[in-house]
Amino acid sequence: MELFYCQNASDGVFTLNEEESAHCVRVLRHKAGETINVIDGSGTLYECELLDANPKGAACKVQVASSCFGVHPYRLTMAVCPTKNIDRYEWFTEKATEIGVDVIATVIGDHSERRTVKTDRLRRLVLSATKQSLKGALPEVPEPVSVKDFILSAPADAIKMICYCFEGEKRSIPEVLSSETPSVMYHQSTVMPDRSTVMPDQIGHLPEICILIGPEGDFSPAEAELAIAHGWKPVTLGSSRLRTETAAMVAVTQVYTCLGD
Amino acid sequence: MELFYCQNASDGVFTLNEEESAHCVRVLRHKAGETINVIDGSGTLYECELLDANPKGAACKVQVASSCFGVHPYRLTMAVCPTKNIDRYEWFTEKATEIGVDVIATVIGDHSERRTVKTDRLRRLVLSATKQSLKGALPEVPEPVSVKDFILSAPADAIKMICYCFEGEKRSIPEVLSSETPSVMYHQSTVMPDRSTVMPDQIGHLPEICILIGPEGDFSPAEAELAIAHGWKPVTLGSSRLRTETAAMVAVTQVYTCLGD
Repeated sequence: MELFYCQNASDGVFTLNEEESAHCVRVLRHKAGETINVIDGSGTLYECELLDANPKGAACKVQVASSCFGVHPYRLTMAVCPTKNIDRYEWFTEKATEIGVDVIATVIGDHSERRTVKTDRLRRLVLSATKQSLKGALPEVPEPVSVKDFILSAPADAIKMICYCFEGEKRSIPEVLSSETPSVMYHQSTVMPDRSTVMPDQIGHLPEICILIGPEGDFSPAEAELAIAHGWKPVTLGSSRLRTETAAMVAVTQVYTCLGD
Repeated sequence: MELFYCQNASDGVFTLNEEESAHCVRVLRHKAGETINVIDGSGTLYECELLDANPKGAACKVQVASSCFGVHPYRLTMAVCPTKNIDRYEWFTEKATEIGVDVIATVIGDHSERRTVKTDRLRRLVLSATKQSLKGALPEVPEPVSVKDFILSAPADAIKMICYCFEGEKRSIPEVLSSETPSVMYHQSTVMPDRSTVMPDQIGHLPEICILIGPEGDFSPAEAELAIAHGWKPVTLGSSRLRTETAAMVAVTQVYTCLGD
């Protein structure tokens, strides 16, 4: 199954951009009248009839729309400091998209050596991983903000966790999730609704989770204190010594395992 | 903390190879009389006194040996078909080593497009990830075998799981582990012994787990049937569509989360 991405339909007709059109018409040789699958990044899959096999702007008409295509039953924001070697960070964005994430927020910490990322490049990687892993919802990749601004702006009702190396009482992500979300109970008793039964109106009620992962030099004490003061729960990823991108990947996998279907 | 790797000590003296010696003496500028940390890959950390700062063959004498350095309380063999793009497979070997794995077995399936790997290169990556993540035990990287030979040669008393996309009854890895290993109960009641208390004589009694991950084209029906016939449990990694290396990484993380400390 091949997905094409197009942000807006007008009167039920999507007109693919040049890149998608060329792929559809030149590479995959689709002809007018054939059915192609389009996503608009909102979570809906559109089965469309190709009207005009124009390699510069292929137009297709929506036949069937199925909501919640490949969505997961939680909302996860991963706020991760960029790694010195950007390949490692880009790799994380691809893997997190495959497994299940809603927002990949680049945050810059007091100890971050790298203080910029190419957001457009990350968005392209995320789009290609979304299509490759057959998901209808495109994770957001906002512009970078400071760790402190992110801590202060996170939604009040989210389950907020910060992974740092400072000493002190910490729980694991599964421990926090099982104490904070009934969904984990569903999961354990395996009556978790499968994703196809997650309806749009439920999405607003899915557990909202934010996880902060620091840079190679960890968070500064000021950042950690600010997070704790604002209700962020300190969590541990276990006793292995993990690189930034590996820690972020383990956190995404733990949420997927606890709350996924 | 910097680790040096040297396979054999003679009379309590390690002589580092040329590469390790140059790194120790030329790059880190260690002098005779200083303390350096050496691993032999068996799980023991050796605090050593540098006797001879020879950049071609630095010799150091063991002062203190601590067993079970950075070990995890399970034995995990990941048998994974190599990916077409070898970078993805190499990336997996690094990540699995960081998180915790004991054997990374390359297996060649009936549907494998790639049928060879550079085992020496994988071993170098695994060694560097072992040192970087401060582990005393070096994961084994055996020469490739066929999926069928691997299925037949796996230890009888291991918990054996195969991830495939065929229809049928499947459990998740955490479900299988919690039904098969008392350790998971320890973990859930958080009285899991921390790694420093895992003594060598216990290692033989750690839960032994083997997980098989197929190629891009999945296992052949014959491979899947052979595995089931030999007591392998079919498992699902959830509803996300994961690439081979992502699936393998998720499996390693789930074992680490369920059985790790």
